[in-house]
Amino acid sequence: MARTGRRPKRPADEDRAASPDTRLAILAAARARFAQSGYDGASTRAIATAAGVDAALIHHYFGSKQRLFVAAMELPFDPDAVRKAVIAGPRDALGERIVRFFLDLWEEPVRRQILLGMVRSAMTDPEAAAMVRRVVVEGAILPLVAETGVTLPAVRATLVGSQLMGLALIRYILCVEPLAGAPIETVVAAVGPTIQRYVMDPL
Amino acid sequence: MARTGRRPKRPADEDRAASPDTRLAILAAARARFAQSGYDGASTRAIATAAGVDAALIHHYFGSKQRLFVAAMELPFDPDAVRKAVIAGPRDALGERIVRFFLDLWEEPVRRQILLGMVRSAMTDPEAAAMVRRVVVEGAILPLVAETGVTLPAVRATLVGSQLMGLALIRYILCVEPLAGAPIETVVAAVGPTIQRYVMDPL
Repeated sequence: MARTGRRPKRPADEDRAASPDTRLAILAAARARFAQSGYDGASTRAIATAAGVDAALIHHYFGSKQRLFVAAMELPFDPDAVRKAVIAGPRDALGERIVRFFLDLWEEPVRRQILLGMVRSAMTDPEAAAMVRRVVVEGAILPLVAETGVTLPAVRATLVGSQLMGLALIRYILCVEPLAGAPIETVVAAVGPTIQRYVMDPL
Repeated sequence: MARTGRRPKRPADEDRAASPDTRLAILAAARARFAQSGYDGASTRAIATAAGVDAALIHHYFGSKQRLFVAAMELPFDPDAVRKAVIAGPRDALGERIVRFFLDLWEEPVRRQILLGMVRSAMTDPEAAAMVRRVVVEGAILPLVAETGVTLPAVRATLVGSQLMGLALIRYILCVEPLAGAPIETVVAAVGPTIQRYVMDPL
């Protein structure tokens, strides 16, 4: 996923007016396909068909399937803003705030598509797995844990990641009842203390 | 995946001697391919090539890719025996025993292949997802939790499942350090109390 010197082909005159819409249509179709089938299972041809464009346009706008994936999977929140918002408030309810934020992300349809695409792709594609490690664990969870000033922030961040990812798996991907249909606040009450312990308590 | 009345074609005379080995070779190749690529990503042709047999033999022995999957993903332990072994011992260390058993399963190479195949397939294939729900959550975790006599066994079982599946995801699939390389007893000490709380404490 290194950014090499891409030089997109200059769009033909008739394309220009439609360009931003076309690009957005491709991104939306890519998110939907990656969410459903993962990176390996989503072909650029299927994405082009779903977006109603010629497959060549995907290359025109994004250069490659991998670059399209990175663009489509843009983290659906600003980690800095989230960290500040979640850290603020009583320290002994930090775990609950983290779980509530995480569930709210997954409950929103477009964000859920992005997260589904990330997780499903990361299962079989090493680049997507590296992206989840870098973006979710190192980019979002670790800075949040580190800001509390606790010891062993990296161990704690991976423990938090394990519970949150597993929760997403059971609730949103495998849809195992009764956890899949439980109200958000029930899940927050059950899982919040786990996250609280992983972040704040002696390990 | 219902077992309909399959009637395997009678093997040709020259096949008979080699039959058990061929069947085992196909199963081993299937486990390896499902583990690496998941159900959707593993073609019967690739499995046949890896097993060194003609693809028609897979149909001969297993009938379909789905039946091959079920045969290859046979649960790598006996849930009844495990339940008895894990339940025995001090009740306040039950969570630790569950985590230790789960990690020991994943550390063993052939079992890890089966579990990887299950989890990777369940991400995009609804039948495989149903199999994980039925075999792992309802067949293994729920009876164990229920045997302790606690309230809300189904909620507790899905919470246990969420932490264990997330642990496997971070440690064995995404390989996020430092959790990926931590000694088993370190992970047991960190995650055991979470499972203990999900099984035994008021929710």
